[in-house]
Amino acid sequence: MFKVTFLPEGKEIEVEGGTTLMEAAQSAGVHINNLCGGKGVCGRCRVKVANGRIRADKHSISLLSKEEILEGYVLACQTKADSDLEVLIPAESRLEEGQILMECSVDYSAPERIALHRLPSDPMCLYEPLTQKVYLELKKPSPEDNASDMDRITRELRKKTQYRDFEISLRCLQGLALKLRNNDWTATATLARHGDLRRILQIEPGDTTEKNYGLAVDVGTTTVVAQLIHLKSGNVLGVAGSHNLQARFGEDVISRMIYACGKEGGLHPLHQAIIENINHLIKSLSTEKGVNPLDITAVVASGNTTMSHMLLSLIPCSIRVDPYVPTANTYPQVRARELGIDIHPEGIVELVPGVASYVGGDIVAGIIACGMADRPEVRALIDVGTNGEIAVGNNEWMVCCSASAGPAFEGGGIKHGMRATRGAIEKLVISDGQVQYKSIGKGKVKGICGSGLIDVLYELARNYLIDGEGKFHFSPQDKRFVEKDGEIQFTLAPADETETGHEIVITQPDISHLIRSKGAVYAAIKSLMDYVGLKFEAIETFFVAGGFGSYLDIPKAVGIGLLPDIERARIQFVGNSSLMGARMCLLSTHTMERAAQIAKGTTNIELTNYQQFMDEYVAAMFLPHTDRRLFPSVNY
Amino acid sequence: MFKVTFLPEGKEIEVEGGTTLMEAAQSAGVHINNLCGGKGVCGRCRVKVANGRIRADKHSISLLSKEEILEGYVLACQTKADSDLEVLIPAESRLEEGQILMECSVDYSAPERIALHRLPSDPMCLYEPLTQKVYLELKKPSPEDNASDMDRITRELRKKTQYRDFEISLRCLQGLALKLRNNDWTATATLARHGDLRRILQIEPGDTTEKNYGLAVDVGTTTVVAQLIHLKSGNVLGVAGSHNLQARFGEDVISRMIYACGKEGGLHPLHQAIIENINHLIKSLSTEKGVNPLDITAVVASGNTTMSHMLLSLIPCSIRVDPYVPTANTYPQVRARELGIDIHPEGIVELVPGVASYVGGDIVAGIIACGMADRPEVRALIDVGTNGEIAVGNNEWMVCCSASAGPAFEGGGIKHGMRATRGAIEKLVISDGQVQYKSIGKGKVKGICGSGLIDVLYELARNYLIDGEGKFHFSPQDKRFVEKDGEIQFTLAPADETETGHEIVITQPDISHLIRSKGAVYAAIKSLMDYVGLKFEAIETFFVAGGFGSYLDIPKAVGIGLLPDIERARIQFVGNSSLMGARMCLLSTHTMERAAQIAKGTTNIELTNYQQFMDEYVAAMFLPHTDRRLFPSVNY
Repeated sequence: MFKVTFLPEGKEIEVEGGTTLMEAAQSAGVHINNLCGGKGVCGRCRVKVANGRIRADKHSISLLSKEEILEGYVLACQTKADSDLEVLIPAESRLEEGQILMECSVDYSAPERIALHRLPSDPMCLYEPLTQKVYLELKKPSPEDNASDMDRITRELRKKTQYRDFEISLRCLQGLALKLRNNDWTATATLARHGDLRRILQIEPGDTTEKNYGLAVDVGTTTVVAQLIHLKSGNVLGVAGSHNLQARFGEDVISRMIYACGKEGGLHPLHQAIIENINHLIKSLSTEKGVNPLDITAVVASGNTTMSHMLLSLIPCSIRVDPYVPTANTYPQVRARELGIDIHPEGIVELVPGVASYVGGDIVAGIIACGMADRPEVRALIDVGTNGEIAVGNNEWMVCCSASAGPAFEGGGIKHGMRATRGAIEKLVISDGQVQYKSIGKGKVKGICGSGLIDVLYELARNYLIDGEGKFHFSPQDKRFVEKDGEIQFTLAPADETETGHEIVITQPDISHLIRSKGAVYAAIKSLMDYVGLKFEAIETFFVAGGFGSYLDIPKAVGIGLLPDIERARIQFVGNSSLMGARMCLLSTHTMERAAQIAKGTTNIELTNYQQFMDEYVAAMFLPHTDRRLFPSVNY
Repeated sequence: MFKVTFLPEGKEIEVEGGTTLMEAAQSAGVHINNLCGGKGVCGRCRVKVANGRIRADKHSISLLSKEEILEGYVLACQTKADSDLEVLIPAESRLEEGQILMECSVDYSAPERIALHRLPSDPMCLYEPLTQKVYLELKKPSPEDNASDMDRITRELRKKTQYRDFEISLRCLQGLALKLRNNDWTATATLARHGDLRRILQIEPGDTTEKNYGLAVDVGTTTVVAQLIHLKSGNVLGVAGSHNLQARFGEDVISRMIYACGKEGGLHPLHQAIIENINHLIKSLSTEKGVNPLDITAVVASGNTTMSHMLLSLIPCSIRVDPYVPTANTYPQVRARELGIDIHPEGIVELVPGVASYVGGDIVAGIIACGMADRPEVRALIDVGTNGEIAVGNNEWMVCCSASAGPAFEGGGIKHGMRATRGAIEKLVISDGQVQYKSIGKGKVKGICGSGLIDVLYELARNYLIDGEGKFHFSPQDKRFVEKDGEIQFTLAPADETETGHEIVITQPDISHLIRSKGAVYAAIKSLMDYVGLKFEAIETFFVAGGFGSYLDIPKAVGIGLLPDIERARIQFVGNSSLMGARMCLLSTHTMERAAQIAKGTTNIELTNYQQFMDEYVAAMFLPHTDRRLFPSVNY
């Protein structure tokens, strides 16, 4: 057994010789970035061996620059311990937990800007949280009225609510007699929706109706964000986010599925990681807002199908193999204690239902948030993430599809790509030949996030620094371009402005990668429109969601051919529509029921079965597109 | 600490000095009969101190004969340990567990004799067990049909059943993907009723529809009886019964409530005792019939309100105090694991709902079993036990009441009274001055049970050995009469025919006790009839239920004034109608729903609030009745 110490944290773990540094880090609960699930092909798990002997081979140093190799860098997933070790995880391989800048990295307030033209008669406007507390003043029993305690409660609940039928948990019934008699026959019942019944989750003495809270959670592949909500008023008390702790098992959904399905029990740590995420958010929100976690009685979570499966510990393995069949698209109502979520143990946990393996509850939540299924006008939602999901429809029909766009716009697979957290370049202009950028937070920059990458691609094209295929063209004397490790790189930030002390650059492969991603998204949009026989002109609004941070320059997104070239006013950036949809479901039983109808009624088109998609994809791998007539407003 | 050894079993327990012998026995899990809950007034807990020193006072020897005192007998509840002890529990103070003669003591087959004139269209005839197994051959997923596993199951269930909506437990969903893929997409789903939904309790590979069992349980104060039922066919595979193990905490309902409510945690051992009873019956039935207990997926239990509360561990304390309010009259569907019942952990446990604190689910089950609520004819059910419960009604209305009759007809409070188990005199005639009796089982007699006591009372009256008030009249030379301990006793069985070696007798106080009991039952019947304004003639059938064993001589029951004097053909002994009703509920969801309607729609008359009852009671304390016109056919 060897002791491996991970720096700068100093966490230690004992491992057997031959264990990879990545496995050691996972066991120690230390995060090392990793995009390929440990296959040695993404190069994100660079670590520096500060002390000790390792077993390394050519795979251990692939994707590394000469400088890095000389400094002692290796890929953690390809390098094995051969003595006690000290391993330094450099800034770019590290997640900085707790430093996520909520106001920038995860856009939770933006969806509020959507003006939903709803009629007050629309049942989705009915305010009726999934759990409600009802205060009861019961008549004391008398010889003339000796109904049972439970009948007494039911009778009063029928008077004070519109519900007829109630069901009570055994646990709650067991202490009831004393609770009522010791508290002068006043009590507060917590009700939860359950089909046509209302479940009584708890009976508390006295009036506790003010103390009822809910949690809306967006379980993203990258980030988990939660809002704490006061259920009586519907007010958002606070919001918190953290990186998805599953990242230590693989950066994208596919690599996490591979981990979960690779060996017996592989699912468990992935499940636990999300629960840990959610519990961490509950703890920090409830502490901050002075809320007793036991007063949280409902959680609504939305996530893609794989995240939903992992949250509930459902086997996700068939999701990634043809014909892409999940265990379920709609999920049972679960008690918090069944999952170990640290709220009231009888509190309910519901997931927004999804449509298919690659169009999950996050998209349905987005459809809800954008009000797409409420009105006759045809509207579209585009969610750009690891997968680009597109939904198009109105109050009568809805179709959707997803394209494997890759995580490029979340910073994945890009040399200096990163999530929209502190230190990320989120906005960039090349003007008079000079790069000017704006980064998230104060201090030196660390990399570039999705919105910045869109800007980079657009600005390079606009300044003719790349051609339509994305190839750099430059004069040898142009100092912004450097050749390094056989790659041409364009400098975005000089070494003295960065946290790592190295330039932040964009490389030729990065650009190809981004063009493939944007092409996949556009091709998916185009294919879906063709499938339903509609022109872009027929779409009233394009809603765009995604982990871009709070900022997305829509004209530039159109300029690179990611989004279709239609009037600016018809494209609306909605940020984290998944979270907003989850909150809407939490606050209205009708909306939650509507979500189930939408999930069920939406037709999913498998693009892999749709011949035209490949043609569209090939045609879209050009800036802005091989068919320039599709982008009349783009003038570079 | 002293060691107390209970003989003849030899069970030992360490107790502190000052612990009563009854408490020591309870801790050791040894049963000593006990009717008053340890108050020293029933005299049923006679034990013989064979060795050691005790702390005894006048209470320790009250109710004992001189002979008994000289032999070392004491009352276990009034006597404390003061050294190591050996305590002999004599035959009459002992339960003989496992010796209950099912075919005699608990009448489970008799109700089958009831001819229910039902229309096939009657929904209560619909065979639809509370849990059902449905075999599914699922279509394998393909690119054209990639619905989720769960949707695939739901789709097929909709085809194969009449149900629309299904809900699945998380546990069941978690393993689903592998189960289906490893078993060629064949599976059996276990469905349970739940409101308008059907709950999927488990998914098993292959076809297991044959292996689905249910348990109907009558939780009586005295006896717990269970039937094991094959749910696909409805066949009764077997039946088993045992004494209610709660008896160690008090023989009747009231003393057990006192125990449960007397101290913190008092309810727990009473709850555990019933669970132990049920688990014991499950074990013995499943072993005998070669059934895997995990294939039992549903339990329906019926019992009085106190038993129902104790089974579910609901606080029963307000049941016994004015205005007699239970925690609930209808009970939630519970999972077996919540109660620790040893069947499939996700299996359901339901209780037949009751009407009020003293008219419980056993009576509603009886109403179901007798088909009283199905037809326009007015019929009545009389359940003679510790309480006499009466229900009268038809398909439009139902009223009921209960009278505290005392446990005399269950053998309680009678010197040689006993339950209808081995050794009990169940039938008796005095002919030509000679007593002839028939007892249960082979071997010597031990006492006399309910049906025997009715016969004794009738035969004594018919032979003018007692007068209308129950007073013995006899000539001093009549050897059948003996004076002992200042009491006149009539010998039923001579010493050489009994297991104890003492005569089995009936005493003057026994007779008074029986007359009070029969008077209470009759007065309740009469009061209820008056309350609804009906004459006995208006009742098509009187159903009589109770723990009399398999035998009840109806003319004699009429002859003592227990039952009203109507044509013999209109009185029907139905035995354990509670068990039959529980089974009917188990086998038909519609019947279970009907039970809830009946429980809700039945009006309970509190006799304590009904002035006329006391008058009726006083008038009925005579043989057969002070108003002989009510009993024209009785000719002694």
